[in-house]
Amino acid sequence: MRWKGDRVEFLDQRLLPDQTVYVACRTAAEVAAAIRDMVVRGAPAIGCAAAFGVVLGKKTKEAFDVLAASRPTAVNLFWALERMRGAEDAAAEAVAIYEEDIAANKAMGDHGAKLVPEKARVMTYCNAGALATGGYGTALGVVRSAKRKSISVIACETRPYLQGARLTAWECVQEGIPVTLITDNMAGHLMSRGEVDLVVVGADRIAANGDTANKIGTYMVATLARRHGLPAPSTCRSPTARRSPSRSARPAK
Amino acid sequence: MRWKGDRVEFLDQRLLPDQTVYVACRTAAEVAAAIRDMVVRGAPAIGCAAAFGVVLGKKTKEAFDVLAASRPTAVNLFWALERMRGAEDAAAEAVAIYEEDIAANKAMGDHGAKLVPEKARVMTYCNAGALATGGYGTALGVVRSAKRKSISVIACETRPYLQGARLTAWECVQEGIPVTLITDNMAGHLMSRGEVDLVVVGADRIAANGDTANKIGTYMVATLARRHGLPAPSTCRSPTARRSPSRSARPAK
Repeated sequence: MRWKGDRVEFLDQRLLPDQTVYVACRTAAEVAAAIRDMVVRGAPAIGCAAAFGVVLGKKTKEAFDVLAASRPTAVNLFWALERMRGAEDAAAEAVAIYEEDIAANKAMGDHGAKLVPEKARVMTYCNAGALATGGYGTALGVVRSAKRKSISVIACETRPYLQGARLTAWECVQEGIPVTLITDNMAGHLMSRGEVDLVVVGADRIAANGDTANKIGTYMVATLARRHGLPAPSTCRSPTARRSPSRSARPAK
Repeated sequence: MRWKGDRVEFLDQRLLPDQTVYVACRTAAEVAAAIRDMVVRGAPAIGCAAAFGVVLGKKTKEAFDVLAASRPTAVNLFWALERMRGAEDAAAEAVAIYEEDIAANKAMGDHGAKLVPEKARVMTYCNAGALATGGYGTALGVVRSAKRKSISVIACETRPYLQGARLTAWECVQEGIPVTLITDNMAGHLMSRGEVDLVVVGADRIAANGDTANKIGTYMVATLARRHGLPAPSTCRSPTARRSPSRSARPAK
């Protein structure tokens, strides 16, 4: 995503990996449409996009309303809107949200990379990469930071929308990180053969007790990882991590 | 599959569910091509098809060779060829193989149906139905026999070839059995929400110790079922069941 002062440009994720096309949005309604139509996706990316949308919409009530309705399930969206509501300099605040997201991802990537062994075969699910965030990525941020360890990636295709096949595999190719694309149902088989060392996934949200919310299928991968004794950390940056009560409302650990 | 004396006709499984087209094969080579090109698939169906192929090929060495090369991983194929080799009346033997398969599936279906509770929500994977066998089906044979118990089916789409989406869902619709199609990665989520009562899958082969061989992803479904305390029997009819040593060569239980 690129902020140009009078517009924000999104790499159209619906057309990847076949085409690299940027969509320019000049109004809050256009940003909301880009979110709704999946031009831009991924919780952190949606938060950044919405912040720029507020700037383009000059902080009007209409701008907040149209953006809030674009993806009602995205917690980052509402967090970003709330932060923009209190900002004195909207453009500076939006840029701050965007840059803080990238900085946080880099810090999380460096932190997570310490957990990644040399030559690890890292399985990931969906796309928690640069495309899903302001930049760098959460789960793929860990992979990026661990790149010098000669790792390789196993990307689950992630049905039905194929974010793993279309986006994660594409990001790895851009980075020069070896990547193998598999159908989701192959994950358990590879684990059972000892061909996976580590699983890293993103999270839409992480509750105070460690419960996570993420794309359907993440539970499957996590359950299989546990069955095979594999570490499978979820990556999710503040502000939405560790703020929510868990579904089962267990006390925080 | 329909035996017409001078030809065998296969419902082209590559075109389902959009088109219902029968492909007529008049030579062993045509039957071998139908197996190789996935016009007909499923271990028991391939065995029946190969038997008819031997009849059409007049039991020549060329007929056996071309059929044996059509799907080297199908145990039923080689079992059927071996049985045809020893037959005095080839046509009668092929029809017997075909009819025995349907009768065995019906018996197995009736047997398995006793394990299915009233109103059970039965998850299945891939296609182990009439299309994969001489008729009636193995896993879907259990479903067919349990139809009067007001059951419903959850069909995993089964990537990459979508046998669940294209074939199992189609068979259920033909039978008037309520069916819900899901992506494979949704299986664990539904189990965790208590929306699955039973899992029934097919098997290419079952070893003496109970180990099974089947389409990739079956292991994932079985592992998730175990995690959630769900019964998940494999269905596979003789002759290839319980004849093979297991991969791990453990003693028979």
